[in-house]
This record gives sequence, structure tokens and C-alpha cells, in this order.
Amino acid sequence: MAPLTTKDVPVPYGRNFLMVPGPTNVPQRVQNAMHRNSEDHRSLDFPKLGLAALEAIKKVFQCRQGHAFIFPGTGTLGWEAALTNCLDPQDQVISVRFGQFSHLWIDMMKRLGLRPIELDVEWGEGLPMDRMEGLIQNDRAHDIKAVCVVHNETTTGVCTDIPAVRRLLDKYQHPALLMVDGVSSIGAVPFKFDEWRVDLAVTGSQKALMLPAGLGFVCASPRALERSKTAKLPHVYMSFQDHLRSNVDGFFPYTPSVPLLYGLVEAVKMLEEEGFEQVWARHHKLAEGVRRAVRAWNLEICCRDPRLQSDTVTTVMLPQGVDGVQVVKVAFQKYNLSLGAGLMRLRGKAFRISSLGDLNELTILGALAGVEMTLRECGYNGFKLGAGVAAAAEYYQQHAVQARGFTEAMAKI
Amino acid sequence: MAPLTTKDVPVPYGRNFLMVPGPTNVPQRVQNAMHRNSEDHRSLDFPKLGLAALEAIKKVFQCRQGHAFIFPGTGTLGWEAALTNCLDPQDQVISVRFGQFSHLWIDMMKRLGLRPIELDVEWGEGLPMDRMEGLIQNDRAHDIKAVCVVHNETTTGVCTDIPAVRRLLDKYQHPALLMVDGVSSIGAVPFKFDEWRVDLAVTGSQKALMLPAGLGFVCASPRALERSKTAKLPHVYMSFQDHLRSNVDGFFPYTPSVPLLYGLVEAVKMLEEEGFEQVWARHHKLAEGVRRAVRAWNLEICCRDPRLQSDTVTTVMLPQGVDGVQVVKVAFQKYNLSLGAGLMRLRGKAFRISSLGDLNELTILGALAGVEMTLRECGYNGFKLGAGVAAAAEYYQQHAVQARGFTEAMAKI
Amino acid sequence: MAPLTTKDVPVPYGRNFLMVPGPTNVPQRVQNAMHRNSEDHRSLDFPKLGLAALEAIKKVFQCRQGHAFIFPGTGTLGWEAALTNCLDPQDQVISVRFGQFSHLWIDMMKRLGLRPIELDVEWGEGLPMDRMEGLIQNDRAHDIKAVCVVHNETTTGVCTDIPAVRRLLDKYQHPALLMVDGVSSIGAVPFKFDEWRVDLAVTGSQKALMLPAGLGFVCASPRALERSKTAKLPHVYMSFQDHLRSNVDGFFPYTPSVPLLYGLVEAVKMLEEEGFEQVWARHHKLAEGVRRAVRAWNLEICCRDPRLQSDTVTTVMLPQGVDGVQVVKVAFQKYNLSLGAGLMRLRGKAFRISSLGDLNELTILGALAGVEMTLRECGYNGFKLGAGVAAAAEYYQQHAVQARGFTEAMAKI
Amino acid sequence: MAPLTTKDVPVPYGRNFLMVPGPTNVPQRVQNAMHRNSEDHRSLDFPKLGLAALEAIKKVFQCRQGHAFIFPGTGTLGWEAALTNCLDPQDQVISVRFGQFSHLWIDMMKRLGLRPIELDVEWGEGLPMDRMEGLIQNDRAHDIKAVCVVHNETTTGVCTDIPAVRRLLDKYQHPALLMVDGVSSIGAVPFKFDEWRVDLAVTGSQKALMLPAGLGFVCASPRALERSKTAKLPHVYMSFQDHLRSNVDGFFPYTPSVPLLYGLVEAVKMLEEEGFEQVWARHHKLAEGVRRAVRAWNLEICCRDPRLQSDTVTTVMLPQGVDGVQVVKVAFQKYNLSLGAGLMRLRGKAFRISSLGDLNELTILGALAGVEMTLRECGYNGFKLGAGVAAAAEYYQQHAVQARGFTEAMAKI
Repeated sequence: MAPLTTKDVPVPYGRNFLMVPGPTNVPQRVQNAMHRNSEDHRSLDFPKLGLAALEAIKKVFQCRQGHAFIFPGTGTLGWEAALTNCLDPQDQVISVRFGQFSHLWIDMMKRLGLRPIELDVEWGEGLPMDRMEGLIQNDRAHDIKAVCVVHNETTTGVCTDIPAVRRLLDKYQHPALLMVDGVSSIGAVPFKFDEWRVDLAVTGSQKALMLPAGLGFVCASPRALERSKTAKLPHVYMSFQDHLRSNVDGFFPYTPSVPLLYGLVEAVKMLEEEGFEQVWARHHKLAEGVRRAVRAWNLEICCRDPRLQSDTVTTVMLPQGVDGVQVVKVAFQKYNLSLGAGLMRLRGKAFRISSLGDLNELTILGALAGVEMTLRECGYNGFKLGAGVAAAAEYYQQHAVQARGFTEAMAKI
Repeated sequence: MAPLTTKDVPVPYGRNFLMVPGPTNVPQRVQNAMHRNSEDHRSLDFPKLGLAALEAIKKVFQCRQGHAFIFPGTGTLGWEAALTNCLDPQDQVISVRFGQFSHLWIDMMKRLGLRPIELDVEWGEGLPMDRMEGLIQNDRAHDIKAVCVVHNETTTGVCTDIPAVRRLLDKYQHPALLMVDGVSSIGAVPFKFDEWRVDLAVTGSQKALMLPAGLGFVCASPRALERSKTAKLPHVYMSFQDHLRSNVDGFFPYTPSVPLLYGLVEAVKMLEEEGFEQVWARHHKLAEGVRRAVRAWNLEICCRDPRLQSDTVTTVMLPQGVDGVQVVKVAFQKYNLSLGAGLMRLRGKAFRISSLGDLNELTILGALAGVEMTLRECGYNGFKLGAGVAAAAEYYQQHAVQARGFTEAMAKI
Repeated sequence: MAPLTTKDVPVPYGRNFLMVPGPTNVPQRVQNAMHRNSEDHRSLDFPKLGLAALEAIKKVFQCRQGHAFIFPGTGTLGWEAALTNCLDPQDQVISVRFGQFSHLWIDMMKRLGLRPIELDVEWGEGLPMDRMEGLIQNDRAHDIKAVCVVHNETTTGVCTDIPAVRRLLDKYQHPALLMVDGVSSIGAVPFKFDEWRVDLAVTGSQKALMLPAGLGFVCASPRALERSKTAKLPHVYMSFQDHLRSNVDGFFPYTPSVPLLYGLVEAVKMLEEEGFEQVWARHHKLAEGVRRAVRAWNLEICCRDPRLQSDTVTTVMLPQGVDGVQVVKVAFQKYNLSLGAGLMRLRGKAFRISSLGDLNELTILGALAGVEMTLRECGYNGFKLGAGVAAAAEYYQQHAVQARGFTEAMAKI
Repeated sequence: MAPLTTKDVPVPYGRNFLMVPGPTNVPQRVQNAMHRNSEDHRSLDFPKLGLAALEAIKKVFQCRQGHAFIFPGTGTLGWEAALTNCLDPQDQVISVRFGQFSHLWIDMMKRLGLRPIELDVEWGEGLPMDRMEGLIQNDRAHDIKAVCVVHNETTTGVCTDIPAVRRLLDKYQHPALLMVDGVSSIGAVPFKFDEWRVDLAVTGSQKALMLPAGLGFVCASPRALERSKTAKLPHVYMSFQDHLRSNVDGFFPYTPSVPLLYGLVEAVKMLEEEGFEQVWARHHKLAEGVRRAVRAWNLEICCRDPRLQSDTVTTVMLPQGVDGVQVVKVAFQKYNLSLGAGLMRLRGKAFRISSLGDLNELTILGALAGVEMTLRECGYNGFKLGAGVAAAAEYYQQHAVQARGFTEAMAKI
């Protein structure tokens, strides 16, 4: 057969490699769980679904003592729900800006009438613990009502040591609420709501939970729930108290997204079948492969401190002269590969590779090969083709695990 | 074959007859449009979907001049978005309580710090136009900033003549914003945002749009959009201005529910293929059949004024001694039929039959037969079995339409 | 609201009422079980699926001692597989023509080179047991190698008393194989392969098993399996022996329809959850409602002997002047109702209403109401509108069962 | 974060990389087209679907003058249909055994009572054209009724030059029917039924057509159709004549697999949107990448003649001491990668990598990385990790194409 010439195509073929840090791939099993007709959300039997969903999400937060709320909405709504249910107008809060998402949360605080103390750091760095300690130490009047931190800055791939923040507050017996944005972390990396004594934690459906966007989750400690009885920032849709009244019987105060509730129950079942510890280990392994690939490409990881490097997203810094916007575009149009773009200050200077959600080694390796071809095409030649894939594959092979009972699982896909 | 005895079953068989006024049946075609993996909501090509969805929902509102917002959320969120984007704290608004949903909206107004003037009527009646006129006429200072009306009270099946409210405001050249809750009406019965000069209209995905719950829609007139630039009720997630900035390029300010956007585009395509006028006519025809059945059962329709009887839901009053809670329970457990319960003041005294969404004559007739068996079982014998079905069938036969080109449509199911 | 005029529509709305005796409605749960990517049918783990499917179909036949084959194909292929695997060219077989399907099977026998003894009866009647007895009694040389009977003639809605045929063969100790076409019966009405000592039974996926067409099933007794080792009618694709060799390890001799195997396992799980006895009782109840409706319409049921009336399909005779072709057409185009047409000799003179598969009372009642409107429209006025529905509803109400634990089931839909 | 230990998992995570040469990946778009309730296959409107499906499959064969049959079944059934419809018992046919599938077809011929002249070659070689020429040349009596060749031996990845076989018959004006097994080729590589004057060609749904198994297709030339009127091998289910009688009106002689027909129409639509020439070019490109990887691993491709190397499957020979059964097992259990096993004579000595169906560069590259890890693990160290991926990636980058209008396509996924 003579080789045929290929030309531009009107349509992409094969599966899109979705490597953005959310929305993540929705497993067929979860897609199918959501594929159903609607049902009456006030029926006699609805509470079984309602209670199952409420129970499932608590497990993800690793929370037994508080309550986890399920809002039709997104993580952004979760931020607002956490703030408006537990704070009064003009309340002072500490917050650190180390990427776009922490920036947007701070912006929200201001627009809601709160007074955030904004701590800025270089993007790529983690929390300035010393400056935070100074503020806490000096706030003897306890004017600071909350410390709001992002667990995993999706912009930079920098993590936060939540237990360290908890210890800081404890050290000074400071009563500020500890609020955590865990949108791109919770479910994928260790997060222990009760054990770490977090007061409010927020996540969304379209990340570690492998669902489409459409649910915002807020987990609240008993202390936060108590606070929500009297907090004065106006809110109705997001009201903890309204939800509590309905949730107790397995209902919701307005029409819930029935398919997403079924999807949530199924997704958490998948995580439990694999085991949460195992899921976290898998995310670590997959991310470590990505990091080894980046180093093999002779590129920098945005997050400088290896101890803070995220297991759900790796932000890759590009050398001068290589345009990050072009990288994302070429990857998408030529290789059907969706990479995360550099955001705000990192726009054009970086791109992001997710290792979050329903992924496995071969998907990561295929994506890394796609990045290699893209980098070449965009003018970066500082590595030998295949070098990144080889580095990751070597690591994956060393840490390979064997799936037992493949079929039981596949039968459910 | 000797007849076999039947006994209670662990599981229901056949399809659930979902006759609650939302969530409504999701057509297979719409279910399939939503059955997909996630995709990058910031990709180069995402705007085609984003713009298609934004365009689609405007058609449903019959709006050309304003902007229609798509929020991950529900109609309740839509209410709050309409209020918080366009009003200041302590603003005075007129609102009429004629069922549970108007009641809840008023409750929200108060909790958000507005000052509603609450007009109460008997449940089953429509707007007290004379009392409203008095208020408008006397408000020479224009302290009243908005008139908030429910287009279709899902509790009672009573409609509102929106053009009449518009005329009332015009008569006194009153500048109050006209806000309409069209959650259980828009898309199913005539609603003309531009022509009727509505300022803010709210609906949700799980009613006439035949989608699962999960999207709240708010349509805003140019005047409302202008007002939203300066309104002072705090809000971020629901911010019109944030959405406008992203929507202009086909994006959203946070992760949208991608499957629901695809579903929305498909659902509106279905409505357009049938034709909006035709969809409205169909809802009228199906509802009229239900009403004729109710009369044949010698029962009262909650909505006394025939001109105000809803084409999307019929609330049926039960005679003394017949328990509405029991009716809903028996219908569900014995006939796999989901009826709407009587709400609040009507609890136990009424039940509701929806004619909203993806239904046809035979589904209604099957449901009516189910109601007849249920009523019998619950002790109501004031009718001859089959009488309601016959009354509806007679009407449907007289108004039968013929589907041309069945296959083109079925090919897409 | 002024009533709106309705006109012909380009597309049907609502769900098609599929009341033909196959293909039947596919439950959402079964549709979802089939919605998956392909998988390697020679993988290490495939046998778990293969064995589960083979086990499942045996339960449907109520067979423990023989083997049930799963062919990619239809019931027609099942007929041919039964014949070619167990007979030699020129073999004599007895067969009764009492409808289109028994006619087609006889036609196949002749084309395959067999010599059927064809017994004809009026359509609407059952097996001529006396004439069959005569043939068996006189065949002392045992030239007759098989007796081939249709269990449920889908054309006429007439059933066969299989145990009576068995007793007939036993009475004369005649070794002919007992072959049964159970395409439109097995799984829906009592059928007991082992207990009745059937030798070969055939069914298909698109009837009681609630799957799409695409699988033909043949159940073979140990005696039939033995016979298949030496039978000389040529066949390869349909070879029992090839399948046996692969099936023993859970494989198939060529690529199986993976989604259909998953669907089969799920469908049988549904039948088992309900209970086979209960499934049979349900079919009887639903069919009895249909029969009562037919009588209330003052129409004749094709099957004259009430003891032989089918619980899966009722053939309704039309009076002179009412065109059956028109009935089917009007029902489809005006009411989105798919009825079975009269076949061959009954073309234009009858139509058929199925009570087979995933149906419930309300679906039947809706369909009956559709038949009533259609009959009116086609010029038959010999009944009062609603009379058939009322007769069926009365029966259904008297025999209503209550579903316990609705939610567990709905959670799986 | 401290690295976590990983251990064996009960369930695989992420997507299975399905790299067997059938069944191939079913695109979401095709899965959704098949996700539907059943419908009446004798309805007034069914022919639109029937005719669309019959038209679609003809395009795939590149046939205008003959007829293409759609059988519920598989390619194996297609083989049998081609033989039994056009040959008489004892007919002589030429056939070449160069892999398992050609072997099985020959076996079928014998069991059906034909007399194949069996030509054997080394596995890895193509057709022995000289020996075939000798047979044709010497058959002056035209006793040879058919020449049966496999277009693409899925066992060895060896192709056949069909036009060369045609020329051979023409050279001697030999009237034998030219029968082609194109199960793993048609739709993926150039095949031109009319232009090459093939008489009978067979394929199945689960290969290039990206559907589940369940449909066998046979394309017949006018000459073959003529022959089918009188051929004497017994057959009914597979009868061309029965199908022709029904197909002319858009129907089928027995219940068709409705979802598969919808899937077929959608799949062919996808192929047409991409363009058949483009689809062939894509398969060539993807396969060429695989071959370059194999060479970079210093392994042999089973097919020795580069001109005959298949673009749909590459059979890779393993060195002494590396067990092919183990390779397939490790790939599956450790990397969720499904490779084709070595078959019959190649069992344990080879494995196969498919490039057939709905695949793209990144999927192939991910799979190649998986093969590399697997080979390492199975004791083969004759290459540097990443070498195969790099070789393929280099080629893919050089031949990269850009997708225009991504979204239009994705909107349909």
C-alpha cells in the first residue's frame, strides 16, 4: 500500500484527552448512573437517595461530626455559602493570594462586605506562615473571624499544609473559623475534616468526584453550624439552616439535581471500592510521573518547594520565547489534547497538566507524548523526544499495581 | 392457563408515570444529548456551545433585547438573583401570596432585607388587581421598586395575566420593575418577555424545558441590566455583571454544567421543531382534558376562575373524608403514578396533576385511569369508573392532530 | 387564556406507546447496562460475563440439565439452529400451521430439506391434538423425528398446552424430539423446560427479555445435545458443538454482542428480583385487563378457547367495514401508539395489543384509551368511550399489588 | 507530602485501552445513537431507517451496483451467507490459509460440503500468487466456482492485493466468483467493491464500523445476486432472496437490531464527515507509527513484506524466552491495556497491536508506552524505555493534521 497523504480534518477522531484540572473525565459508570428520567423529589421514597447522597459526601470530606451540604451550584457558590452562613458584614478575615482562585475568593469577600487582610506571595510559593502567625498573635481582641485558605491552588499547583494552619490557631487559642477551599483537592489527596478540625471546607462535583459541574459541597463543623444560626450576611438559597431542616428527613429545600445525586452516590462508591487511601496514592503516583517528565524536558515546575507540589495539577513554566497560549491551542487542535492554560499572571508563561480524577498511567503517558509533540511544534527543543514519557513510564513501572478481579469492576462500568 | 394470584412485589414494573409539575420527564433525546464526557469549558471552541445555549434560552423567554442568564442552580436561585442584582436593601416591593411558591418568594424578600408589601388572597384565586392598583396609584413617590408576581402558582394551578399587570404600571407611569416567576410556566404557555415588557423573569430547567433540575434562568430587560450596575444587595455567585463580562465571548464566570448546556440546546431545538405556538397549544389541550376529567369525577378544580386555570398543573380539591396524602401514597405504591401533593394550606385536601413537559394524550389518559383507581381505593365513589378518562378522550379525539414525518423525529430520539 | 387551535405537527411528542408483541420496551436499567464501550471478548476476565450470561438464560428456560445457546441473531436463527443441529436431511417432522409464525417455520423446514407433515387449522384455534395423536400412534417405525410446535402464536394470540404434547409422545413412547418455538412466550408465561421434558426450545431477546433484537436463544436437552453430535444438516455458524467447546470456559466461538450480554444479565436480574412466578402473574393480569376491554368494546378475541388465550398478545377481530390497516395507521400517526397489525390471513381484519414485557397497568390503560379513540375515528361506534378502560381498570384495581421498597429498585433504573 | 505506598487494587481505574483488532472502541456518539427504546420494525415509517442503513453500508463497501445485506449476526455468519447463497454442494473453491481466520473459513467450507483447494503458506506471508495462477490457468473446465481470499489476516497483519487477484481471474477469463473476507479491513483501508469487481465481500460491525458486534454485512455483485437465485446449499436465515424481497421496501425479513441500525447510520455518518479517503489515511498513519515503534524496540513485524503490512493490526514477534501469553496478561492486569494475543501457531510467540477504529495518536502513544512497560516487566530489555513512543511520536508530529471546527464535531459526541 502506498502511503497516503493526510490533510487537515473537519472533525477530531478518537477520544479527547481531557487533562485540565476540572472538569475531569466522567467514568462511564457514573455517566450511566446519571442517565435516567427525572423522579419526584418529594416522593415517599426519595429520602433513601437523599440520605445516601448526604452520607456519601461526608465520607469524602472525612467528616463524621458536622454536616455536609449539597447545593445545586459550583465551588464558587460553595465559597459564598461558607462565608455568608458564618460571618457578619464587616467581619475581618485573613486570606492569602497565591493564584487566581485565592484571588477570586478574596475578591468575593470584599464584594460581600467583609474585610479581608490580604497576604500576597509570589505565585509558585505557598502560605507565608510567619506573616500569618504575626497577625494571629497580635489579634488579641479576636477581631479576625476566619482564616480562609486554598488547599490546592489550581493556578500554580501549590498545596497548603492545613494541619499547620490549624496548629497555628491552636497555638494562640484563636477562635477564628478555619475555612478551606478544597475544590481541586478533596477526594484526590489526603483531607481529614474532623481530624484536622477544619470548620468549613468547600469542594465541587467536577474535580476529584468525577462528575459534571453542577454541585457545590460545603462541609461545616458543629462550631460553624452553631455560628450559622446567627450570622448576618444575607443569603437564602445557600442557607445552611434551610438545608438542615430538609436534610434531616432526606429532602432538600428546593428541587435537587436528581441525576447528579445518583452520580454522586455512584462516584463515591467507586472511590470506596478503590479505597480512599489508595485513591490518594494513585494521584500521588500519577502526579509524580508528570513531574519526572517535566524535569526530563528540562522545564521548571511552578511550585518551587517539592513538599508543596500538588498531586492533582502540575503547572509547567515555559522558557522565554515559547508561548503558552500557543501550546494549549496546538495541543487541542492537532492532538485532541486539552491542557490547562496559564492563568492571570502566568498567562502565556505556563501551562498545566492535570493528574486529577479518573485517569490511569496510559492516559497520562499518552498526554505526555502529546505535550512533547506540541512543545516541539511550538519551538522548544530542549529535550529529546520521548524523554518525558520514558521518565514517567520508568516510575510507573516501578510502582505498578495489579488489579485483582478486573471483571467485577468492568461488569459495572 | 389458570389465573395466577398476584401478591405484593418488591419492585415496581414498567415506567413511572411522573405527573408532578416538575421535575418533568426528560425525553430520551435530551438524556442522550447530556450523556457525554466532560470537556474543557475554557477551550478555544467552547464558545460555540456557550453562545448556542445563551441564544436558546432567550428564545424560550421570547426575548431579543435583554439578556438571559444561565446559572448552575435552580429557580429559587433565579428568584434571589433577580432580587439581589436589581434592588437595594430596604427596597419596597409588592408581592401577592396565593400559594406556596409566592409565599416562599416573599419570605426570601424579607430575609434578604427587602420590605415586601404582602397581599394575601384565598388560595385558588388570582391576583387582587384592584388592591394592587390602589397601591400603585398611591405610590406617587415611587417608593415601590418592584412588583413581583408568580405567573403560574404551582400550588393552586392559578395563572396571572401578566399583560394586565404591565398595563397597571403603565397606567400610572410607575417605574417599578416588573418581576415574574415563570418557573412552572415559561416554555409551556404563552410568555412574551419583550412584548409584555417584563423586566425580570425567572425559570428553571426541570419544568417546561424537560431537563433535570440544575439550571436557573433569569431574563433581564435593558432597564434591569442598567439597574444591576448599581444595586446594593450583596451577591457574587449570582452577579449579572460577572456573567455579562464572560457571556459576551460565550464563556461563563465559573465552571458551567456542560451536559446541561448540551441538554438545553437540544431541548430548545425540540421545542422549536414542534413550534412554540404549537407547544403552548398542546399544553392547553392536554390540560383541558385533565379538567374535563376532574369535572366528570364531580370534583372541584382549585382555581375557581376558568380564565385563570393553569395549562401546566391542575389542583384537584378532595371531598371531606378523602385524604390527599393517602391519594398520593396509594397512586405511587400501587400504580407507579407520581402525583403532586397538596401543599401547605392544601395539604391533605388536594392533589395535583401536571400536564407539563414531554407528555402526550396516552400518558395523560393512563394517569387519569390511575387517579380513578386510586380515588376508588381511597374511598371516593362519586363517579363511574372510566368517566374521567372518557371525558378527556372525547376531547382529545376531537382535537387530534396528525404527526407528519414521524421517522425524522424518531430517528433523533 | 383563550383556547388555542392545534394543527398537524411535524414531530410526535411524548413517549411512543409500543404495544407490539416485540420488540418490546427496553427498561432504562437494561439500556444503561448496555451503554458501554466494547471490551476484549478473549480477555482473561471475559468468562465471568460469558458464564453469567449463559447461566442467566438457562434460568429463563427453567433448565438445569441441558445447555442454552446464545447466538448473535434472532428467533428465526434459533428455529434454524434447532432444526439443523438435530435433524438429518429428509427427516420427517410434524408441525401445525395456526398463524404466520408457525407457517414460516414450516416453510423453513421445507427449504432446509426436511419433510414436514403440515397440519392446518382455522386461525384462532389451537393444536389439533386428535390429528396429532393419530399421526404419532400410527408412526410405529418412528419415522417422525420431531414434533415442532409454537408455544404462543403471535399472529392469533393462541397458546399451546406443551405438557399435553409431551404426554401424547409419552403415551406412545414415541422418541420424536419435542421442539418448541417460545419466542413470544418464554420468560413471560409459565415455561418449564426440564419439567415438561422439552428437547429444544427457542426464544429471542426482544420479547419477554426486554432487550433489543439481536440474540437468538436455543435451549437443548441432553438428548438433543447427543443428537447434535451426528445430525447431518449442514451448519457452522449455528453449531451447537462449536459453542459447547467455547462455552465451557465462558467464551464464544466468534465475537459475541458484548452489550447484549450485559443487557441479558441485567434483564434476567430484573426478572429474578420480581420473581418469575410474579412476572407470569403480572402478564396474566395485564392481559386479562386487555381481554375485558375487548369484550367491553363488543369485539371478538381471535382465540376462541378462553383456556388458550395468550397472556402476551391479544388479537382483536374487527367488524366488517372497519379496516385494520387504517386502525394501526391512525393509532400511530394520531396517538403515537404502535399496535400490531393483522398478519397474512388476518391482514386488515384484526389488530393486536401486546401485554408483553416491561409494562404496567397505566401503560396498558393509556394504550386502551388510545385504541378507543382510534376505533371511533375508524368508524366503529359499537361501544361507549371509556368502556374498555373502565373494564380493565376495574379488574386492575381489584388485583392491585403494592410495591415495597420502591427506592431500591428506582435507584438502579 | 510524603510519597504514599501503592498496593494492588481491587478495581482498575481510568479507561481501558482497547487495542485488540475488534471489537473496537465505540465512540460516545455512536453509543448514544444506539441508546433508545425499541420501536416497531413494521411501522409505516420504519423504512426510512431501513433504507438509510442499507444505503449507508453500501457506501462503506464502495458499492453502487450490487446489494449489501445486513444480517443480525457476525462476520462468521457473513462468511456462511456468502458461501451458501452462491454455491452448490461439492463446489470447488480456492482458498489460502495464512492465519487463523483464513483457516476457519476453509474449515467452514469443508463442513458445508464444499471442496476447497487449500493453499498453505508460512504465517507472515501473503497470497501465493503463482500457485493460484497455476490453478486458475489449468482449470479450463471452470470447475473452480470461487476464489475466497482474506483481505486482511487479523492473525498476522498481512494484507492481500485484491486487484491483483481480480487481474489473475481476468487474465484467464475465469468465471469463478471472487469472495473477500474484509472483516478487519473494510471501512479502514481502501476497498472498492465495484471498481475491483469483487463478487462477494464480508465484514462485521465491530471493526472499522466502530459498533458492537451483532451485525454481519455481505455485499453481493449483480452476478452473485443472479447466482443466489439457484444456488443449492441449504439456508433460510441467511437467504439473500428473502432479504431482497423485504429490503426493497426498507424492511427486513425478521426483527432487525434497531439500535444497531441507528448506530450504523451514525457511524457511517462519522466516516463520511471525516471522508473515507481521510479515514484510510488516518489508519495508515497510526499503523505506521506502531511499526516504527516496533522497529525501535528491535522486534520483528510478523508480516515480512512491507507492502503487505496491515494498517489495522500489527503482529509483533517476540524473542525466544519472552512469553506472549504473559505479555497480554501483564498489560491487562497492570496497565488496563488490552492487546491481541498470538493465535494458533503464533500463540505465545507474538502479540498484536490494533490501529483499527476510533483511535487517535495519543491513544496509540499511551498504548505503546504500556507495551514498553509490559515488555520490560516480561523480561525483554532490548530497547531503551521511551524509544518506541519517540519513534511513533516523531512520525505523528511530522504528519500532524489540524482539526477545523472542533466544536461542531464535539457538539455531536
